[in-house]
This record gives sequence, C-alpha cells and structure tokens, in this order.
Amino acid sequence: MKKTPLMILFLLTILVVAVAQDIKKLPIPTPAQLTWQNAELVAVFHYDLHVFDGKQYAQHENRITPVPDYNIFNPQTLDTDQWVKAAKAAGCKIAILTATHETGFALYQSDVNPYCLRAVKWRDGKGDIVKDFVESCRKYDVLPGIYIGIRWNAFLGIHDFSVSGEGAFAENRQKYYNSMCEGMTNELMSRYGDLAIVWFDGGAHGPEKGGPDVLSIFEQHQSNCIFYHNTQRADIRWGGSESGTVPYPSWGTYSYPFSHSTNQEVIFKNDFQLLKVGDPDGPYYMPAMSDAPLRGINGRHEWFWEPGDDEHIFPLENLVDMYYNSVGHNSSLILGLTPNPDGLLSEPDVQRLKEMGEEINRRFSNPLASTSGKGTKFSLNLKKGQKINQVVLAENIEFGERVREFLLEGKTNKGWQTIFEGSCIGHKFIHLFDDLAVTELRLKISESKAEPQIAAFSAFYIEK
Amino acid sequence: MKKTPLMILFLLTILVVAVAQDIKKLPIPTPAQLTWQNAELVAVFHYDLHVFDGKQYAQHENRITPVPDYNIFNPQTLDTDQWVKAAKAAGCKIAILTATHETGFALYQSDVNPYCLRAVKWRDGKGDIVKDFVESCRKYDVLPGIYIGIRWNAFLGIHDFSVSGEGAFAENRQKYYNSMCEGMTNELMSRYGDLAIVWFDGGAHGPEKGGPDVLSIFEQHQSNCIFYHNTQRADIRWGGSESGTVPYPSWGTYSYPFSHSTNQEVIFKNDFQLLKVGDPDGPYYMPAMSDAPLRGINGRHEWFWEPGDDEHIFPLENLVDMYYNSVGHNSSLILGLTPNPDGLLSEPDVQRLKEMGEEINRRFSNPLASTSGKGTKFSLNLKKGQKINQVVLAENIEFGERVREFLLEGKTNKGWQTIFEGSCIGHKFIHLFDDLAVTELRLKISESKAEPQIAAFSAFYIEK
Repeated sequence: MKKTPLMILFLLTILVVAVAQDIKKLPIPTPAQLTWQNAELVAVFHYDLHVFDGKQYAQHENRITPVPDYNIFNPQTLDTDQWVKAAKAAGCKIAILTATHETGFALYQSDVNPYCLRAVKWRDGKGDIVKDFVESCRKYDVLPGIYIGIRWNAFLGIHDFSVSGEGAFAENRQKYYNSMCEGMTNELMSRYGDLAIVWFDGGAHGPEKGGPDVLSIFEQHQSNCIFYHNTQRADIRWGGSESGTVPYPSWGTYSYPFSHSTNQEVIFKNDFQLLKVGDPDGPYYMPAMSDAPLRGINGRHEWFWEPGDDEHIFPLENLVDMYYNSVGHNSSLILGLTPNPDGLLSEPDVQRLKEMGEEINRRFSNPLASTSGKGTKFSLNLKKGQKINQVVLAENIEFGERVREFLLEGKTNKGWQTIFEGSCIGHKFIHLFDDLAVTELRLKISESKAEPQIAAFSAFYIEK
Repeated sequence: MKKTPLMILFLLTILVVAVAQDIKKLPIPTPAQLTWQNAELVAVFHYDLHVFDGKQYAQHENRITPVPDYNIFNPQTLDTDQWVKAAKAAGCKIAILTATHETGFALYQSDVNPYCLRAVKWRDGKGDIVKDFVESCRKYDVLPGIYIGIRWNAFLGIHDFSVSGEGAFAENRQKYYNSMCEGMTNELMSRYGDLAIVWFDGGAHGPEKGGPDVLSIFEQHQSNCIFYHNTQRADIRWGGSESGTVPYPSWGTYSYPFSHSTNQEVIFKNDFQLLKVGDPDGPYYMPAMSDAPLRGINGRHEWFWEPGDDEHIFPLENLVDMYYNSVGHNSSLILGLTPNPDGLLSEPDVQRLKEMGEEINRRFSNPLASTSGKGTKFSLNLKKGQKINQVVLAENIEFGERVREFLLEGKTNKGWQTIFEGSCIGHKFIHLFDDLAVTELRLKISESKAEPQIAAFSAFYIEK
C-alpha cells in the first residue's frame, strides 16, 4: 500500500488523539490543590478548652469527659497576629485553626452551637477567634483554613459521629446534631470569606452513614478550596502517620476519591501503605499531607498546649529532616502549633519556627545552577571542582505528575556517576547526599506519561 | 393518802408536761411555709423555646426532641411587669418562673449552662428574664419563686435525670450534668435575692440516686424559702392532680418528709389519695398545693402557650370553683400562666385574671360578722332575717392544725340546724351552701390537739 499524504495525515491524527487521551487520563490538580501544593508548609493551630485545664492532654479520656468549667477559657493576651507571624516565619503559606475540636466548644460566635465563645465571660461573650485568626492571616498574606471537629463532642455526648443512647431519643438528637453540624459548617463557610482548606477532623460522615451533609454546604460557599474529607471527597489524603513525613515515592495520585473514610481494610493495611505511597495509576489527584505537632519529641506528641511541655518542641534538626521527608517527597508538611493559656504561641515555639524558616531559606535560596523546561533530558553545568550535596527537582504539576522513572547523574573526575535512580518527582523531589564534586549534572527521564514539564532542576551545596 | 399541796403541784406539773409534749408533737409550719399558706394564690409562669415554635405543645415528644433552632426565642415586646401585674390582679402573692424546663434552655445568663439566653440573638445575648421577673415581682410586692427543671433535658440527652448512653462516657457526662445542675442551682439561689419558693420539676434526685446535690446549695443560700422537692425534703406536697383542687379534708400534715419522690407504691395508690388527703397524724407539716394551667378547659391542659389556644382559658366560674376547692380546702392554688411569643401574657388571660381577682374580692371582702380567739366554742350574731350562704374558718396554723372535729350550726326560725360537720380547718376552710336565714351561728370544736386557735370565723352572704 502506497502511503499517500492523506493517509499520513490520518495516521498522525490517530497518534495525536491517542496522546491527548493519555494526557486526558492523567489526573491534574484543581487550582485549590495547586495552591495547596505550592504552599508546601502549613500550620494547623489547635486551641480548645483543655489548653486551660493545667493538665496533660489525654485524648481518649477527654473525648468522653466534658470539661468541668468552660469558663477556664480566658486567654487574657490573645493575639492571633502573633500566631500567624510565627507560622509565617517558619515559611507557612497556609494556616488553619480548629474552630471546633473534640470538646465540642466552638471558637466563634455560633448561632447553632451554644457551646461556643458566646457562653464564656471572656471578652464578655463577644470573642470570635476564627474571625481574628482569618483577619490576621489576610493581614500577613497567609491563606486561612478552618478545621471543624464533629466526630467527637464530649459535651453533647457524640462518639465517633454518633449520639449516645438508644431509641427515638437518640434518633431525634442525632438528627438535631447533624443539623447543628450543617449549621456550623454553613456559618464557617459563609462568614469568613474564601478559605484555602476546610479540614473535617476524622472526616465527616455524610448522610449515607447517618451523618450531616456538609459537603454540599462547602461546595455552595467555597468553590476554590481544599475539602478534607468525607466518603465522597478528599482533595488531599492523610499521609498515613503523624510523623510529618511520607516515604519515597509518595505519588500525588490515589486509587479512591476519598482518603481513608471508607474501604479501610484495603487502605489501612500494611501500616497505611496506600495512604503513604499513593497510586501512580490512580485516577484521583490527591497528594499526601504529612502532619506532626511541633511539640513531639522525647516521647511526647502534643497537639494541645500543656504545662511544662516546652522541652518537647522538636529540635531544629528534626524539623529540617521532616521537611526533606515531606515537602521533599511530594507532600506538604502540616505543623501543629498550639497557643498557650495566655493566648500566645509560647516564646520557645516562636523561636524554633523562626529558626526553621531561616534554615529552610538557607538551604534552598541559593542554587548553584538551575534549569527548567519540557523534555526528557536536562543538564546543569557547574564550575570545575564545585562540590554539591543537594538536588531539587520539580514538575509543573498543573499538567499532572508525568515523570515515572528518572536517572540523576553527575560527571565527576571519574566520569559519570549515578546520584539517584527515582520514580516520582511530582510537585517537588529533594535529594540530599554526600558531598560530590561535579562539573555537570544530568537528569534523564526514561519513562513518563506525556511530555515531562520540569519546573525546576537545581543543584545546591549546603554547609552542614 | 392525803393530798398535800406539794403532791398537787407534782400532779399539775405532770399534766402540764403531758400537754406540752402533745403540743410539741404537733407539726407546725416554718416561717416560709406560713408565708406560702398565707399567699393562698400563686402564679407559675411557664416560658420556654416551644412557645415560639408555632405548634401545639407535645410534652412526650418534646422531651426527647431538641428544638431545631433556639433562635426562635425572640420575644420582641417582653415585659415581665405586665406578667406580674396580671398575676397580682388575680390575687397571687407569689409568682414563680421556669428558669429552665424540659428543653434544658435557661432563661438567664448562666455561666455553667451554655444553652441559655447567652446563646441567642435576642437582646444581643444579654437577656436575663429571671432577673427581670424577680425585679418585677419586687416592684409590685409579689414574692418571687424559681422553678428549675433538671429531670429532662432534650438538648443534652437527659431522660428522667439520667444521661443517655452507657459506660464511662455516660458516667462522665452524668457527673458533668450533675455538676451543671448544682452550678445552675447555685447561680439561681445566689444571684436574685431571697425567694419564696424553689420548685424542682419532678423533684430533684439527690446523690443517693446518682443525681446532683441541690438541697445543700439551696440551704446555703435560701434559709427562709419553700423547697419543693426531693427525696429528703419537701415543704409542700403535690396535691395529687393538676386540676387545681384537693378534696376535703386535705390535712396540712403528711406521713413522710418527701412529697412523692419515693415510696411511690404507697403514695400513688388509690389515685394519689395520700397526697390529696394528707395524714392528720403525720409528723411533717407539708400542705398540699393544687396546680392547674389557666388554659385547661375544653379538653386542653396547656402549661405552655400555643397558637389558637385562647379559647381554652378557664371560664371565671371554673376558676372560682377551683379557688373554693383549693384555698377553701386548706391548700394553695397554683395557676399556670404562659406568656406568648411577643413576651406578653395574652390579653384574654390578663382579662380573666382580673375578673378572677375581682370576683374573689367580691366574695371574701365583706363578712357580715367575724370573730377569732382561743377555745372550742365560738358564735356570731346576725341581725334577724339575715341570709347567709358562706362561712370561712381559719386556724392560726402558726400553732399547728389543732382542730380535728367541729360542728357548724345556725339558729334559724326552726331552731338550731347543722350547717356542716367537719374535721380539718387548717389554714382555711370555706363552706358555701344554700341561702339560710340565721340569727346566730356557732362553731363547736369537739376534738382537737391542744387548745384551738381560731384566726377567723366569718359569715358571708354572696349574691350569685
């Protein structure tokens, strides 16, 4: 058969369509997910009645024990500006506040949950910390997010989403509680402007599980916002630990539209392997987040302020290590911060966050060489005898995680040497290695979905 | 044996001691009980969230169903002066307000129960109806009382004093709830000055039944006040119906120190006979109260305002009949009043209360003859041809209910005629009978504990 120009055009069309379909299948982030991934560092502020009880926080006991006197809530020098500035100094671009947590107490002026700042004497019952917090975020150019805990409520007797008791009384109260949760969601979604993320602690059972319909309320008010999470939807997934890290690789795509609200047998097995690693062929873009409380060293793990807990603030070294194993593994690092009973982030926390921000700046602000572009082969030239010990790779994930296999090599005085053989790059891949003198670095992408779009290929030398 | 003066003195001493002991055994009212009995007419104002829901009140359903939106509480023209004036016009000398009822919602600024007037938008969350009410009472010289409902709480899931659920969660919440009830009692007992009565709806389980210890808090703050009621103490007893009446006789003394909180098999039998009749030999002074809602005719019985319920206000005739069968039977009449969603007692209620007060005044203000004093025989002289149809008897109950059997006779033109053979007089006995022309009336007390102390023996002629 003679190949006519028409036939060539026909074959080319088939090829283009095939490639386009392949690209089309590749999950890409929404604008809200892009913002989230680009933020890299996120602070989540935990603040609740237990901060004021002068005791160690005991989650299991607290979940089933109402705080005896809610008027212990009395942060005399509360200053959300101070909180947000401290988070920003660490490099956080998003900051989240627990509007409610497991006591059920709400840090704002709710019209549907009387167990809120209206109830206390503090600020004559007029305080609204969610409002203060969101305003501080906007003032310091940090994107605000809101955390809503509805899974537990020690005050109202809610255990794992369910009203305690039996029969018609429990059924009626469940209906009431669901409606109250919807009402709080509506208030929090509609009163404080655009949010970067709404985080339902432990997920939010939907109506399919006898829970409130919070998703539709969220969707009505926040069209450009991360939803985390329920059985229908999760825009990020939990990274499978509260260590502030994920393993390598941790793909930004996932097998299910939900994080871990359901199908737990599969998702939880092998120490949450699927949550940690993700699914390179998964149809949902849903990157892993790596959360950890700042106060989590020496056998402690404290999301809530406790007396005498300053010594449990992670040393800088650990925080930097977390950064490499979260942001450097295509994840985001969520740092749990908790203001003290005075209403301020304690000075040692503020200091450590500042040190962290400075150290990250020091490590990533001055590449020796950098390039970007489309294609499968990239190289960086370095001056002779230049030692390097860190490479940062980044895909332009607006177009999806295209890279599936890559090789990173350096040209030493003994010739080309493999530095790293990898798979996932995604939003960011950071590799730290022993000092190596190279005159050239090259990145070869041997497998990809569609043409790789490399946003950064940078080499660094970090003084240790 | 010769009777010497010494021996006579000795025998006299024995006699005096015996009589004194007999008197000593006779239960007498406390000053608070005296005030209560003298008040005769008492108003109890019921006001709660359900007044605002535009529906018929359905107690059984409401007990187990939280009100969907507590911001329906919005009485735009609330005026407790208007309430108290209306009650006073009927003749009420004590007025009680439901600080909390079965929803659990508190009509004041509680620091321990967030489900209160702090929670609502009404008056910017600063309303305190208990305060307004007590101040109105003092302004119009009516003694204030407070009703506290802790037996049911639809919001918090309390059913018959018990927290719904099981295990440690229910135990911890029960402890919390008990403490909250103690806290509310403390607030209500300490913030509003001296009270005439504190009424715990359905009683208050004490610690012996796993409930709060409200009695000791009451005793700490209110030394001259009716306590109604728990298993340890009741200063009045329920009269065994909500008909606004008790039968004759209804003794002011009772067999137990509690009303009906316990020993229910004995107390409830034979249609609450013991509560109704009392126990003439009972060791506790605890008169029966006769309660009824003003809106209780034509098959309705409404403690709470409902739309379209004006037609169920008792006609004057029924209210007067109630008066005779409560106040006239040594009991007190407790009228249930319920302000409307505007915050006012509706005009038809106000009008009926005014009519009631006027009619009672008309019937009891102008005795034809009256006497009082100590002894067993009393008489009243009337002018020849004078018709009478009503006699009022009263003991000075400060000294106890001494009269046990009496005969009331009238001297007609046919000679002495029996008008009534009775037993109990107590605080007040009113007898209404067919017109009878007498020139003399006499009261013979044939049996008594110690010397009778008659506060009033009065004859009336009432135009019918």
